[in-house]
Amino acid sequence: MKLVRYGAAGSEKPALVDSAGQLRDLSAHVTDITGETLGDAVLDRLRAIDPESLPIVEGDPRIGACVGKIGKFLCIGLNYSDHAAETGADIPKHPILFFKANSAIVGPYDDVVMPRGSTHTDWECELGVVIGKTAKYVSKADALDYVAGYCIVNDVSERHFQTQLTGQWTKGKSCDTFGPTGPWLVTRDEVPDPQALGMSLDVNGQRMQTGNTATMIFTVAEIIEHLSQLFTLHPGDVISTGTPPGVGMGIKPDPVYLKKGDVMELRIDGLGTQRQKVSQDD
Amino acid sequence: MKLVRYGAAGSEKPALVDSAGQLRDLSAHVTDITGETLGDAVLDRLRAIDPESLPIVEGDPRIGACVGKIGKFLCIGLNYSDHAAETGADIPKHPILFFKANSAIVGPYDDVVMPRGSTHTDWECELGVVIGKTAKYVSKADALDYVAGYCIVNDVSERHFQTQLTGQWTKGKSCDTFGPTGPWLVTRDEVPDPQALGMSLDVNGQRMQTGNTATMIFTVAEIIEHLSQLFTLHPGDVISTGTPPGVGMGIKPDPVYLKKGDVMELRIDGLGTQRQKVSQDD
Repeated sequence: MKLVRYGAAGSEKPALVDSAGQLRDLSAHVTDITGETLGDAVLDRLRAIDPESLPIVEGDPRIGACVGKIGKFLCIGLNYSDHAAETGADIPKHPILFFKANSAIVGPYDDVVMPRGSTHTDWECELGVVIGKTAKYVSKADALDYVAGYCIVNDVSERHFQTQLTGQWTKGKSCDTFGPTGPWLVTRDEVPDPQALGMSLDVNGQRMQTGNTATMIFTVAEIIEHLSQLFTLHPGDVISTGTPPGVGMGIKPDPVYLKKGDVMELRIDGLGTQRQKVSQDD
Repeated sequence: MKLVRYGAAGSEKPALVDSAGQLRDLSAHVTDITGETLGDAVLDRLRAIDPESLPIVEGDPRIGACVGKIGKFLCIGLNYSDHAAETGADIPKHPILFFKANSAIVGPYDDVVMPRGSTHTDWECELGVVIGKTAKYVSKADALDYVAGYCIVNDVSERHFQTQLTGQWTKGKSCDTFGPTGPWLVTRDEVPDPQALGMSLDVNGQRMQTGNTATMIFTVAEIIEHLSQLFTLHPGDVISTGTPPGVGMGIKPDPVYLKKGDVMELRIDGLGTQRQKVSQDD
Protein backbone atom coordinates (compact mmCIF):
# COMPACT_ATOMS: atom_id res chain seq x y z
CA MET A 1 0.00 0.00 0.00
CA LYS A 2 1.26 3.46 -0.92
CA LEU A 3 -0.10 6.11 1.42
CA VAL A 4 -0.03 9.78 0.51
CA ARG A 5 -1.09 13.07 2.08
CA TYR A 6 -2.36 15.76 -0.30
CA GLY A 7 -3.56 19.34 -0.04
CA ALA A 8 -2.33 22.61 1.42
CA ALA A 9 0.47 22.50 4.02
CA GLY A 10 -1.01 21.97 7.44
CA SER A 11 -4.35 20.66 6.19
CA GLU A 12 -3.35 17.61 4.19
CA LYS A 13 -5.83 14.78 3.59
CA PRO A 14 -5.03 11.07 3.47
CA ALA A 15 -5.07 9.07 0.24
CA LEU A 16 -3.63 5.96 -1.30
CA VAL A 17 -2.18 5.32 -4.74
CA ASP A 18 -4.14 2.74 -6.72
CA SER A 19 -2.66 0.26 -9.19
CA ALA A 20 -3.12 2.76 -12.02
CA GLY A 21 -1.16 5.42 -10.11
CA GLN A 22 -4.32 7.39 -9.34
CA LEU A 23 -4.80 9.04 -5.91
CA ARG A 24 -7.84 7.75 -4.00
CA ASP A 25 -9.11 9.72 -1.01
CA LEU A 26 -9.13 7.94 2.38
CA SER A 27 -10.81 10.70 4.41
CA ALA A 28 -13.88 8.55 5.05
CA HIS A 29 -11.65 5.98 6.76
CA VAL A 30 -8.90 7.94 8.57
CA THR A 31 -8.54 11.66 9.24
CA ASP A 32 -4.81 11.75 8.47
CA ILE A 33 -1.71 9.54 8.09
CA THR A 34 0.04 9.97 11.46
CA GLY A 35 1.41 7.84 14.27
CA GLU A 36 -2.16 7.17 15.33
CA THR A 37 -2.99 5.47 12.02
CA LEU A 38 0.23 3.52 11.42
CA GLY A 39 -0.39 0.49 13.62
CA ASP A 40 -0.95 -2.89 11.98
CA ALA A 41 -4.67 -2.91 12.83
CA VAL A 42 -5.47 0.33 11.03
CA LEU A 43 -3.17 -0.49 8.11
CA ASP A 44 -4.88 -3.90 7.74
CA ARG A 45 -8.26 -2.17 7.75
CA LEU A 46 -7.12 0.22 5.00
CA ARG A 47 -5.60 -2.65 3.02
CA ALA A 48 -8.95 -4.43 3.03
CA ILE A 49 -10.65 -1.55 1.21
CA ASP A 50 -11.18 -1.96 -2.53
CA PRO A 51 -9.33 1.08 -3.94
CA GLU A 52 -11.92 1.28 -6.74
CA SER A 53 -14.52 2.10 -4.10
CA LEU A 54 -12.64 5.22 -2.96
CA PRO A 55 -13.20 8.66 -4.50
CA ILE A 56 -10.61 9.67 -7.08
CA VAL A 57 -8.64 12.78 -6.09
CA GLU A 58 -9.27 15.25 -8.89
CA GLY A 59 -6.84 17.78 -10.25
CA ASP A 60 -3.17 18.04 -9.37
CA PRO A 61 -3.00 18.86 -5.67
CA ARG A 62 0.14 19.58 -3.69
CA ILE A 63 1.61 16.44 -2.08
CA GLY A 64 2.60 16.83 1.57
CA ALA A 65 5.06 14.84 3.65
CA CYS A 66 3.79 11.25 3.70
CA VAL A 67 3.46 11.28 7.51
CA GLY A 68 1.88 14.04 9.58
CA LYS A 69 2.74 15.10 13.13
CA ILE A 70 6.15 13.46 13.02
CA GLY A 71 7.42 13.33 16.59
CA LYS A 72 11.12 12.64 16.32
CA PHE A 73 12.94 13.17 13.04
CA LEU A 74 16.01 11.02 13.65
CA CYS A 75 18.99 10.80 11.34
CA ILE A 76 21.90 8.44 11.09
CA GLY A 77 25.16 9.97 9.89
CA LEU A 78 27.93 8.40 7.84
CA ASN A 79 26.02 5.15 7.41
CA TYR A 80 27.34 4.14 3.99
CA SER A 81 30.95 2.99 3.99
CA ASP A 82 31.63 4.67 0.63
CA HIS A 83 30.08 7.99 1.81
CA ALA A 84 32.15 7.87 5.01
CA ALA A 85 35.20 7.44 2.81
CA GLU A 86 34.37 10.46 0.62
CA THR A 87 34.02 12.72 3.68
CA GLY A 88 37.29 11.42 5.13
CA ALA A 89 35.58 10.07 8.25
CA ASP A 90 36.32 6.80 10.02
CA ILE A 91 33.76 3.99 9.95
CA PRO A 92 31.70 4.57 13.10
CA LYS A 93 31.48 1.88 15.82
CA HIS A 94 27.81 2.64 16.52
CA PRO A 95 25.16 4.40 14.43
CA ILE A 96 25.81 8.15 14.61
CA LEU A 97 22.58 9.82 15.68
CA PHE A 98 21.51 13.40 15.22
CA PHE A 99 18.12 15.07 15.06
CA LYS A 100 16.61 17.21 12.37
CA ALA A 101 14.00 19.68 13.61
CA ASN A 102 10.55 18.31 12.79
CA SER A 103 9.74 21.87 11.67
CA ALA A 104 12.08 21.21 8.72
CA ILE A 105 9.69 18.67 7.17
CA VAL A 106 8.03 19.55 3.87
CA GLY A 107 6.43 17.75 0.97
CA PRO A 108 8.47 15.93 -1.69
CA TYR A 109 7.88 18.56 -4.37
CA ASP A 110 7.97 21.70 -2.20
CA ASP A 111 10.78 24.21 -2.73
CA VAL A 112 13.93 23.82 -0.65
CA VAL A 113 14.62 27.32 0.65
CA MET A 114 18.21 28.15 1.57
CA PRO A 115 18.41 30.42 4.60
CA ARG A 116 19.72 33.96 4.31
CA GLY A 117 23.41 33.96 3.63
CA SER A 118 23.66 30.23 3.00
CA THR A 119 26.33 29.30 0.44
CA HIS A 120 26.98 25.65 1.41
CA THR A 121 23.63 23.88 1.04
CA ASP A 122 24.01 20.24 -0.02
CA TRP A 123 21.80 17.25 -0.85
CA GLU A 124 21.51 13.78 0.73
CA CYS A 125 19.18 11.13 -0.69
CA GLU A 126 18.17 8.75 2.12
CA LEU A 127 15.90 5.84 2.95
CA GLY A 128 13.36 6.98 5.56
CA VAL A 129 11.92 4.45 8.00
CA VAL A 130 8.52 5.25 9.52
CA ILE A 131 7.86 3.67 12.91
CA GLY A 132 4.42 2.06 13.31
CA LYS A 133 4.54 0.55 16.80
CA THR A 134 6.06 1.68 20.11
CA ALA A 135 9.61 0.25 20.30
CA LYS A 136 11.76 0.01 23.46
CA TYR A 137 14.61 -2.47 24.04
CA VAL A 138 13.86 -4.22 20.75
CA SER A 139 16.18 -6.87 19.33
CA LYS A 140 17.50 -6.79 15.79
CA ALA A 141 15.59 -9.99 15.01
CA ASP A 142 12.24 -8.34 15.79
CA ALA A 143 13.06 -4.78 14.75
CA LEU A 144 11.38 -4.68 11.34
CA ASP A 145 8.02 -5.61 12.93
CA TYR A 146 8.03 -2.08 14.38
CA VAL A 147 8.22 -0.45 10.96
CA ALA A 148 5.05 0.85 9.32
CA GLY A 149 6.78 1.54 6.05
CA TYR A 150 9.44 3.33 4.07
CA CYS A 151 9.82 6.59 2.17
CA ILE A 152 12.41 8.89 0.62
CA VAL A 153 13.96 11.67 2.73
CA ASN A 154 16.19 14.42 1.38
CA ASP A 155 18.42 15.21 4.35
CA VAL A 156 19.27 18.69 3.07
CA SER A 157 22.33 20.01 4.90
CA GLU A 158 24.01 23.41 5.21
CA ARG A 159 27.65 22.36 5.58
CA HIS A 160 28.87 25.68 6.96
CA PHE A 161 26.10 25.76 9.57
CA GLN A 162 26.76 22.07 10.26
CA THR A 163 30.49 22.32 10.88
CA GLN A 164 31.52 25.97 11.37
CA LEU A 165 28.93 27.34 13.82
CA THR A 166 30.36 25.47 16.81
CA GLY A 167 29.68 21.83 17.65
CA GLN A 168 26.83 19.42 16.83
CA TRP A 169 25.49 18.93 13.30
CA THR A 170 21.90 19.88 14.09
CA LYS A 171 22.30 23.52 13.07
CA GLY A 172 22.97 22.64 9.45
CA LYS A 173 20.28 19.98 9.30
CA SER A 174 17.28 21.77 10.77
CA CYS A 175 16.64 24.76 8.51
CA ASP A 176 13.04 25.18 7.38
CA THR A 177 12.27 23.03 4.27
CA PHE A 178 15.43 20.89 4.82
CA GLY A 179 13.41 17.69 5.24
CA PRO A 180 11.39 16.74 2.12
CA THR A 181 9.66 13.47 3.03
CA GLY A 182 7.66 11.25 0.66
CA PRO A 183 5.97 11.15 -1.81
CA TRP A 184 4.63 7.81 -0.54
CA LEU A 185 4.74 5.87 2.66
CA VAL A 186 5.14 2.39 1.20
CA THR A 187 4.01 -0.16 3.78
CA ARG A 188 6.61 -2.71 4.81
CA ASP A 189 4.80 -5.66 3.17
CA GLU A 190 5.72 -4.07 -0.19
CA VAL A 191 9.41 -3.70 0.74
CA PRO A 192 10.52 -7.27 1.39
CA ASP A 193 14.20 -6.31 1.82
CA PRO A 194 15.03 -2.74 2.88
CA GLN A 195 18.71 -3.58 2.38
CA ALA A 196 18.40 -4.08 -1.38
CA LEU A 197 17.10 -0.75 -2.67
CA GLY A 198 18.84 1.16 -5.41
CA MET A 199 18.79 4.94 -5.06
CA SER A 200 19.91 8.02 -6.92
CA LEU A 201 19.91 11.80 -6.83
CA ASP A 202 20.26 14.15 -9.79
CA VAL A 203 20.90 17.90 -9.75
CA ASN A 204 19.70 19.70 -12.88
CA GLY A 205 19.49 16.35 -14.65
CA GLN A 206 23.04 15.34 -13.81
CA ARG A 207 23.48 12.18 -11.74
CA MET A 208 25.25 13.06 -8.46
CA GLN A 209 24.44 10.19 -6.11
CA THR A 210 24.15 6.52 -6.97
CA GLY A 211 23.86 3.96 -4.24
CA ASN A 212 22.16 0.95 -2.79
CA THR A 213 21.00 0.31 0.76
CA ALA A 214 23.00 -2.93 0.58
CA THR A 215 26.12 -0.89 1.45
CA MET A 216 24.75 0.54 4.70
CA ILE A 217 27.13 0.08 7.62
CA PHE A 218 24.23 -0.41 10.06
CA THR A 219 21.08 -2.00 8.67
CA VAL A 220 17.59 -0.68 9.38
CA ALA A 221 17.11 -3.48 11.92
CA GLU A 222 20.40 -2.70 13.66
CA ILE A 223 19.57 0.99 13.83
CA ILE A 224 16.18 0.30 15.42
CA GLU A 225 17.75 -2.10 17.90
CA HIS A 226 20.38 0.47 18.88
CA LEU A 227 18.08 3.49 19.17
CA SER A 228 15.44 1.56 21.12
CA GLN A 229 18.04 0.83 23.83
CA LEU A 230 18.43 4.59 24.29
CA PHE A 231 14.82 5.78 24.19
CA THR A 232 11.35 4.84 23.01
CA LEU A 233 10.59 5.02 19.31
CA HIS A 234 6.97 6.09 18.90
CA PRO A 235 4.56 5.56 16.01
CA GLY A 236 5.08 8.39 13.56
CA ASP A 237 8.78 8.83 14.35
CA VAL A 238 10.90 8.86 11.19
CA ILE A 239 14.48 7.60 10.96
CA SER A 240 16.51 8.78 7.99
CA THR A 241 19.21 6.18 7.55
CA GLY A 242 22.14 7.98 5.97
CA THR A 243 23.25 8.78 2.46
CA PRO A 244 25.37 7.02 -0.18
CA PRO A 245 28.34 8.70 -1.91
CA GLY A 246 27.97 11.73 -4.15
CA VAL A 247 27.13 14.64 -1.89
CA GLY A 248 28.28 18.08 -3.01
CA MET A 249 30.89 18.56 -0.33
CA GLY A 250 32.63 15.36 -1.41
CA ILE A 251 33.22 16.45 -5.01
CA LYS A 252 36.92 16.76 -5.96
CA PRO A 253 38.79 18.96 -6.49
CA ASP A 254 36.16 21.54 -5.49
CA PRO A 255 32.95 20.92 -3.57
CA VAL A 256 29.72 21.90 -5.35
CA TYR A 257 26.79 23.42 -3.48
CA LEU A 258 23.23 24.24 -4.45
CA LYS A 259 22.24 27.59 -5.92
CA LYS A 260 18.94 29.31 -6.59
CA GLY A 261 17.00 27.65 -9.39
CA ASP A 262 18.70 24.27 -9.11
CA VAL A 263 16.42 21.23 -9.28
CA MET A 264 17.05 18.05 -7.26
CA GLU A 265 15.46 14.75 -8.23
CA LEU A 266 15.64 11.80 -5.83
CA ARG A 267 14.63 8.20 -6.47
CA ILE A 268 14.62 5.00 -4.42
CA ASP A 269 13.45 1.64 -5.86
CA GLY A 270 9.75 1.21 -5.19
CA LEU A 271 9.42 4.42 -3.16
CA GLY A 272 8.82 6.90 -5.98
CA THR A 273 10.53 10.14 -6.90
CA GLN A 274 11.02 13.49 -5.19
CA ARG A 275 11.77 16.73 -7.00
CA GLN A 276 12.58 20.07 -5.38
CA LYS A 277 13.48 23.46 -6.80
CA VAL A 278 15.97 25.47 -4.75
CA SER A 279 15.19 29.05 -3.71
CA GLN A 280 16.66 31.34 -1.07
CA ASP A 281 15.42 33.74 1.58
CA ASP A 282 16.36 37.39 0.87
CA MET B 1 0.89 34.43 35.67
CA LYS B 2 1.97 30.92 36.60
CA LEU B 3 0.50 28.33 34.25
CA VAL B 4 0.40 24.66 35.17
CA ARG B 5 -0.81 21.40 33.62
CA TYR B 6 -2.19 18.79 36.00
CA GLY B 7 -3.54 15.26 35.71
CA ALA B 8 -2.45 11.94 34.28
CA ALA B 9 0.32 11.92 31.66
CA GLY B 10 -1.18 12.52 28.24
CA SER B 11 -4.45 13.98 29.50
CA GLU B 12 -3.29 17.00 31.49
CA LYS B 13 -5.64 19.92 32.12
CA PRO B 14 -4.67 23.59 32.25
CA ALA B 15 -4.60 25.61 35.46
CA LEU B 16 -3.00 28.65 37.00
CA VAL B 17 -1.50 29.21 40.43
CA ASP B 18 -3.34 31.87 42.43
CA SER B 19 -1.71 34.28 44.89
CA ALA B 20 -2.27 31.80 47.74
CA GLY B 21 -0.46 29.07 45.77
CA GLN B 22 -3.71 27.22 45.04
CA LEU B 23 -4.27 25.61 41.61
CA ARG B 24 -7.27 27.04 39.73
CA ASP B 25 -8.66 25.13 36.75
CA LEU B 26 -8.62 26.90 33.36
CA SER B 27 -10.43 24.22 31.33
CA ALA B 28 -13.40 26.51 30.70
CA HIS B 29 -11.07 28.98 28.98
CA VAL B 30 -8.43 26.88 27.16
CA THR B 31 -8.24 23.16 26.48
CA ASP B 32 -4.50 22.91 27.23
CA ILE B 33 -1.32 24.96 27.59
CA THR B 34 0.39 24.47 24.21
CA GLY B 35 1.85 26.55 21.41
CA GLU B 36 -1.69 27.39 20.36
CA THR B 37 -2.44 29.11 23.68
CA LEU B 38 0.87 30.90 24.26
CA GLY B 39 0.38 33.96 22.07
CA ASP B 40 -0.02 37.37 23.72
CA ALA B 41 -3.75 37.56 22.90
CA VAL B 42 -4.68 34.34 24.70
CA LEU B 43 -2.32 35.06 27.59
CA ASP B 44 -3.88 38.55 27.98
CA ARG B 45 -7.33 36.97 28.01
CA LEU B 46 -6.29 34.52 30.74
CA ARG B 47 -4.62 37.30 32.70
CA ALA B 48 -7.89 39.24 32.72
CA ILE B 49 -9.72 36.45 34.55
CA ASP B 50 -10.19 36.88 38.30
CA PRO B 51 -8.48 33.76 39.68
CA GLU B 52 -11.04 33.67 42.50
CA SER B 53 -13.71 33.00 39.86
CA LEU B 54 -11.98 29.79 38.73
CA PRO B 55 -12.68 26.37 40.27
CA ILE B 56 -10.12 25.25 42.83
CA VAL B 57 -8.30 22.04 41.83
CA GLU B 58 -9.03 19.60 44.64
CA GLY B 59 -6.66 16.94 45.95
CA ASP B 60 -3.04 16.55 45.06
CA PRO B 61 -2.92 15.72 41.34
CA ARG B 62 0.19 14.87 39.36
CA ILE B 63 1.76 17.93 37.74
CA GLY B 64 2.71 17.51 34.07
CA ALA B 65 5.25 19.38 32.00
CA CYS B 66 4.14 23.03 31.95
CA VAL B 67 3.78 23.02 28.14
CA GLY B 68 2.06 20.33 26.08
CA LYS B 69 2.86 19.24 22.53
CA ILE B 70 6.35 20.72 22.62
CA GLY B 71 7.59 20.81 19.02
CA LYS B 72 11.33 21.35 19.27
CA PHE B 73 13.14 20.71 22.56
CA LEU B 74 16.31 22.71 21.92
CA CYS B 75 19.30 22.78 24.23
CA ILE B 76 22.32 25.02 24.44
CA GLY B 77 25.52 23.34 25.63
CA LEU B 78 28.38 24.80 27.64
CA ASN B 79 26.62 28.14 28.10
CA TYR B 80 28.01 29.06 31.51
CA SER B 81 31.65 30.05 31.49
CA ASP B 82 32.29 28.34 34.84
CA HIS B 83 30.58 25.08 33.66
CA ALA B 84 32.64 25.12 30.45
CA ALA B 85 35.73 25.41 32.64
CA GLU B 86 34.77 22.42 34.82
CA THR B 87 34.32 20.21 31.76
CA GLY B 88 37.63 21.37 30.30
CA ALA B 89 35.97 22.79 27.19
CA ASP B 90 36.82 26.04 25.42
CA ILE B 91 34.39 28.95 25.51
CA PRO B 92 32.28 28.46 22.37
CA LYS B 93 32.15 31.16 19.65
CA HIS B 94 28.45 30.55 18.97
CA PRO B 95 25.73 28.92 21.06
CA ILE B 96 26.22 25.14 20.90
CA LEU B 97 22.92 23.61 19.84
CA PHE B 98 21.67 20.10 20.32
CA PHE B 99 18.21 18.58 20.49
CA LYS B 100 16.63 16.51 23.18
CA ALA B 101 13.90 14.16 21.97
CA ASN B 102 10.54 15.68 22.81
CA SER B 103 9.57 12.17 23.93
CA ALA B 104 11.96 12.71 26.89
CA ILE B 105 9.70 15.35 28.43
CA VAL B 106 8.01 14.54 31.75
CA GLY B 107 6.51 16.43 34.65
CA PRO B 108 8.65 18.15 37.30
CA TYR B 109 7.95 15.53 40.01
CA ASP B 110 7.89 12.40 37.82
CA ASP B 111 10.59 9.77 38.33
CA VAL B 112 13.73 10.01 36.25
CA VAL B 113 14.26 6.48 34.94
CA MET B 114 17.81 5.51 34.01
CA PRO B 115 17.89 3.22 30.95
CA ARG B 116 19.05 -0.37 31.25
CA GLY B 117 22.74 -0.54 31.93
CA SER B 118 23.16 3.19 32.52
CA THR B 119 25.89 3.99 35.05
CA HIS B 120 26.68 7.60 34.10
CA THR B 121 23.42 9.52 34.49
CA ASP B 122 23.96 13.14 35.53
CA TRP B 123 21.90 16.23 36.38
CA GLU B 124 21.76 19.71 34.80
CA CYS B 125 19.56 22.46 36.24
CA GLU B 126 18.64 24.88 33.43
CA LEU B 127 16.50 27.88 32.63
CA GLY B 128 13.88 26.88 30.04
CA VAL B 129 12.53 29.47 27.60
CA VAL B 130 9.10 28.83 26.10
CA ILE B 131 8.49 30.43 22.71
CA GLY B 132 5.13 32.21 22.34
CA LYS B 133 5.30 33.71 18.86
CA THR B 134 6.73 32.51 15.53
CA ALA B 135 10.34 33.79 15.32
CA LYS B 136 12.48 33.92 12.15
CA TYR B 137 15.42 36.25 11.55
CA VAL B 138 14.78 38.04 14.84
CA SER B 139 17.23 40.59 16.26
CA LYS B 140 18.57 40.43 19.79
CA ALA B 141 16.81 43.71 20.58
CA ASP B 142 13.39 42.23 19.82
CA ALA B 143 14.06 38.65 20.85
CA LEU B 144 12.40 38.61 24.27
CA ASP B 145 9.08 39.70 22.70
CA TYR B 146 8.90 36.17 21.24
CA VAL B 147 9.06 34.52 24.66
CA ALA B 148 5.83 33.37 26.33
CA GLY B 149 7.57 32.60 29.60
CA TYR B 150 10.15 30.67 31.55
CA CYS B 151 10.39 27.41 33.45
CA ILE B 152 12.88 25.00 34.98
CA VAL B 153 14.30 22.15 32.86
CA ASN B 154 16.41 19.31 34.19
CA ASP B 155 18.60 18.41 31.20
CA VAL B 156 19.30 14.90 32.48
CA SER B 157 22.29 13.45 30.63
CA GLU B 158 23.80 9.98 30.33
CA ARG B 159 27.49 10.86 29.91
CA HIS B 160 28.54 7.49 28.53
CA PHE B 161 25.76 7.54 25.93
CA GLN B 162 26.57 11.21 25.24
CA THR B 163 30.26 10.78 24.59
CA GLN B 164 31.12 7.11 24.10
CA LEU B 165 28.47 5.85 21.67
CA THR B 166 29.97 7.67 18.65
CA GLY B 167 29.43 11.32 17.83
CA GLN B 168 26.69 13.87 18.65
CA TRP B 169 25.42 14.39 22.21
CA THR B 170 21.78 13.61 21.44
CA LYS B 171 22.02 9.95 22.46
CA GLY B 172 22.77 10.81 26.08
CA LYS B 173 20.21 13.57 26.24
CA SER B 174 17.11 11.93 24.80
CA CYS B 175 16.36 8.96 27.05
CA ASP B 176 12.74 8.70 28.20
CA THR B 177 12.10 10.89 31.30
CA PHE B 178 15.33 12.87 30.76
CA GLY B 179 13.45 16.18 30.35
CA PRO B 180 11.51 17.20 33.48
CA THR B 181 9.92 20.56 32.57
CA GLY B 182 8.04 22.87 34.95
CA PRO B 183 6.37 23.03 37.41
CA TRP B 184 5.16 26.41 36.18
CA LEU B 185 5.32 28.34 32.96
CA VAL B 186 5.89 31.82 34.43
CA THR B 187 4.87 34.41 31.87
CA ARG B 188 7.58 36.84 30.83
CA ASP B 189 5.93 39.87 32.49
CA GLU B 190 6.80 38.26 35.84
CA VAL B 191 10.45 37.70 34.87
CA PRO B 192 11.72 41.23 34.22
CA ASP B 193 15.34 40.09 33.75
CA PRO B 194 16.00 36.48 32.70
CA GLN B 195 19.72 37.19 33.19
CA ALA B 196 19.46 37.69 36.96
CA LEU B 197 18.02 34.41 38.23
CA GLY B 198 19.68 32.44 40.98
CA MET B 199 19.45 28.65 40.60
CA SER B 200 20.47 25.54 42.47
CA LEU B 201 20.29 21.75 42.37
CA ASP B 202 20.56 19.39 45.34
CA VAL B 203 21.02 15.61 45.28
CA ASN B 204 19.76 13.87 48.42
CA GLY B 205 19.72 17.22 50.21
CA GLN B 206 23.30 18.08 49.34
CA ARG B 207 23.87 21.20 47.25
CA MET B 208 25.59 20.25 43.98
CA GLN B 209 24.90 23.16 41.62
CA THR B 210 24.76 26.84 42.50
CA GLY B 211 24.56 29.41 39.74
CA ASN B 212 23.00 32.51 38.33
CA THR B 213 21.84 33.20 34.79
CA ALA B 214 23.98 36.34 34.95
CA THR B 215 27.01 34.17 34.06
CA MET B 216 25.57 32.79 30.82
CA ILE B 217 27.96 33.14 27.88
CA PHE B 218 25.06 33.76 25.47
CA THR B 219 21.98 35.51 26.88
CA VAL B 220 18.44 34.33 26.19
CA ALA B 221 18.06 37.17 23.66
CA GLU B 222 21.31 36.24 21.88
CA ILE B 223 20.29 32.59 21.72
CA ILE B 224 16.92 33.42 20.16
CA GLU B 225 18.60 35.76 17.67
CA HIS B 226 21.11 33.08 16.66
CA LEU B 227 18.67 30.16 16.39
CA SER B 228 16.11 32.19 14.46
CA GLN B 229 18.71 32.83 11.73
CA LEU B 230 18.93 29.06 11.26
CA PHE B 231 15.27 28.03 11.39
CA THR B 232 11.87 29.12 12.59
CA LEU B 233 11.12 28.97 16.30
CA HIS B 234 7.46 28.04 16.72
CA PRO B 235 5.08 28.69 19.63
CA GLY B 236 5.51 25.83 22.08
CA ASP B 237 9.17 25.24 21.27
CA VAL B 238 11.31 25.11 24.43
CA ILE B 239 14.94 26.20 24.63
CA SER B 240 16.93 24.93 27.58
CA THR B 241 19.75 27.41 28.00
CA GLY B 242 22.61 25.47 29.57
CA THR B 243 23.72 24.63 33.07
CA PRO B 244 25.94 26.28 35.70
CA PRO B 245 28.83 24.46 37.41
CA GLY B 246 28.37 21.47 39.65
CA VAL B 247 27.37 18.60 37.39
CA GLY B 248 28.38 15.13 38.52
CA MET B 249 30.93 14.52 35.79
CA GLY B 250 32.83 17.65 36.88
CA ILE B 251 33.38 16.52 40.47
CA LYS B 252 37.07 16.06 41.42
CA PRO B 253 38.85 13.78 41.92
CA ASP B 254 36.09 11.33 40.93
CA PRO B 255 32.89 12.07 39.02
CA VAL B 256 29.63 11.25 40.81
CA TYR B 257 26.62 9.85 38.99
CA LEU B 258 23.05 9.18 39.98
CA LYS B 259 21.91 5.87 41.44
CA LYS B 260 18.54 4.29 42.14
CA GLY B 261 16.70 6.03 44.96
CA ASP B 262 18.53 9.35 44.67
CA VAL B 263 16.40 12.49 44.84
CA MET B 264 17.16 15.62 42.83
CA GLU B 265 15.71 19.01 43.78
CA LEU B 266 16.03 21.94 41.39
CA ARG B 267 15.18 25.59 42.03
CA ILE B 268 15.28 28.79 40.00
CA ASP B 269 14.27 32.18 41.45
CA GLY B 270 10.58 32.81 40.79
CA LEU B 271 10.12 29.59 38.77
CA GLY B 272 9.42 27.15 41.62
CA THR B 273 10.98 23.84 42.50
CA GLN B 274 11.32 20.46 40.78
CA ARG B 275 11.93 17.19 42.59
CA GLN B 276 12.59 13.80 40.98
CA LYS B 277 13.35 10.41 42.38
CA VAL B 278 15.72 8.27 40.33
CA SER B 279 14.79 4.74 39.29
CA GLN B 280 16.13 2.38 36.63
CA ASP B 281 14.78 0.05 34.00
CA ASP B 282 15.53 -3.62 34.69
